Amino acid sequence: MADYKSIIAYDGTDFQGFQRQKAGVRTVQSVLEDGLRAVGWEERSLQAAGRTDAGVHAKGQVIAYELPWKHSAVKLTQALNANLPADVSVVSSESVEADFHPRFSAKSRRYRYTLIVAPVRDPLRARYSWRIWPRPNIEAMQTAAGLLIGEHDFAAFGTAPIPGGQTLRTVTRADWKRTKDELCFEIEANAFLYHMVRRLVGALIEVGTGRKAIEEVSVFLDRPSVRWEGSLAPAQGLCLEAVDYSGSNKDLEDRSPGL
Amino acid sequence: MADYKSIIAYDGTDFQGFQRQKAGVRTVQSVLEDGLRAVGWEERSLQAAGRTDAGVHAKGQVIAYELPWKHSAVKLTQALNANLPADVSVVSSESVEADFHPRFSAKSRRYRYTLIVAPVRDPLRARYSWRIWPRPNIEAMQTAAGLLIGEHDFAAFGTAPIPGGQTLRTVTRADWKRTKDELCFEIEANAFLYHMVRRLVGALIEVGTGRKAIEEVSVFLDRPSVRWEGSLAPAQGLCLEAVDYSGSNKDLEDRSPGL
Repeated sequence: MADYKSIIAYDGTDFQGFQRQKAGVRTVQSVLEDGLRAVGWEERSLQAAGRTDAGVHAKGQVIAYELPWKHSAVKLTQALNANLPADVSVVSSESVEADFHPRFSAKSRRYRYTLIVAPVRDPLRARYSWRIWPRPNIEAMQTAAGLLIGEHDFAAFGTAPIPGGQTLRTVTRADWKRTKDELCFEIEANAFLYHMVRRLVGALIEVGTGRKAIEEVSVFLDRPSVRWEGSLAPAQGLCLEAVDYSGSNKDLEDRSPGL
Repeated sequence: MADYKSIIAYDGTDFQGFQRQKAGVRTVQSVLEDGLRAVGWEERSLQAAGRTDAGVHAKGQVIAYELPWKHSAVKLTQALNANLPADVSVVSSESVEADFHPRFSAKSRRYRYTLIVAPVRDPLRARYSWRIWPRPNIEAMQTAAGLLIGEHDFAAFGTAPIPGGQTLRTVTRADWKRTKDELCFEIEANAFLYHMVRRLVGALIEVGTGRKAIEEVSVFLDRPSVRWEGSLAPAQGLCLEAVDYSGSNKDLEDRSPGL
């Protein structure tokens, strides 16, 4: 029996989110647990770094589990992939210490939100992005994003995972990047509140379209008693890119094998 | 009544190819014709630049039709998009001379085939690519691609659209480009035979994996009586990028509105 960690990728479109629900509801966790059972897993529940919402994608979700596996970690990845549907896959696996926990051991998480700035729909990118038009003011959005950096109480922009739980989070990166008509928001923090990235993207777009002033974002930071009025950015633009365990997890930085 | 040309994009996954078939079969043409009818179109059949196979995508398919439309071409694009499903869209529209024909007026077509070179599946890219592993020899594939340039009889690699039709085609570009673990084949020709791009990609991959020698590609070029033995590259990696009408169609080169 050993403890393993696997990096998981999925297309969230056809899942009712990550977390297992009642029988018959298709979630990433239930599909992964079925795959694990097929290779001899006998625990009741796997551990995961984060619970993504329905429709949210992942390139770097992390799970941990105990398994009586006698072969290499590479063979474990292959065996699991043979027992998973096309919209979820194991990127890599490795054995870890018994005290490793994908959520509690994580030092930071990185999410990416993808927008397409275009007057018409693009069927080839709609599955993984949110289209907006007309063009927003990206400089204003970047200035507002800069206000998020540091330790703040993000209660106005999300909900603690535990009722009444801590809503202080430390954002270490919040950047807009554009390439042609694509506009990506990359945000990294020690941890996130529920809906925090989608609500922040919604807020920054309101700043970019002039419906809200830049200053309003800072007014709502560190005011736990009020809620930012505004809609969530749609789920399909969001992707959990990576979870960092500082040193124990170097492969998350560049998992591309290159050529 | 005026004649219009529209550039069309679609995700080919859920279509049984472009060309209309019997009632009940979902094709791009039938969905476009339903959309056109909703804005007043009364012809029997629209004209298109090319008939893509089931599962093949397009960013730059071109159609032409006659329509009693009283508003601007921009409004026509909007009205059509409001009457099309999420997996097909009109990128732009313009009025054209009555003698314009999307197939016969075309000077060249450009296709792109996307490969992912990786040991494990990627659910976020599987819809638009073909994954291969181990790494192929890209230099050999580029050398073999160079042999395709110029006018050749491609009968060994495809079928004429009309039985007994001409199989000479002039390839003006055939390049492999790689970015991280992505490998793209871009090919441009005056016109293509049925299955020609997918069969050529299949052949070049056989060269890259050492199953065939580079010289074998040139042996099969200009030998109309034999067939290249080998499988087609899967449909989902292929995309019709653009159709060029030399001068009448500048927007095809860069349709991205930028920011």
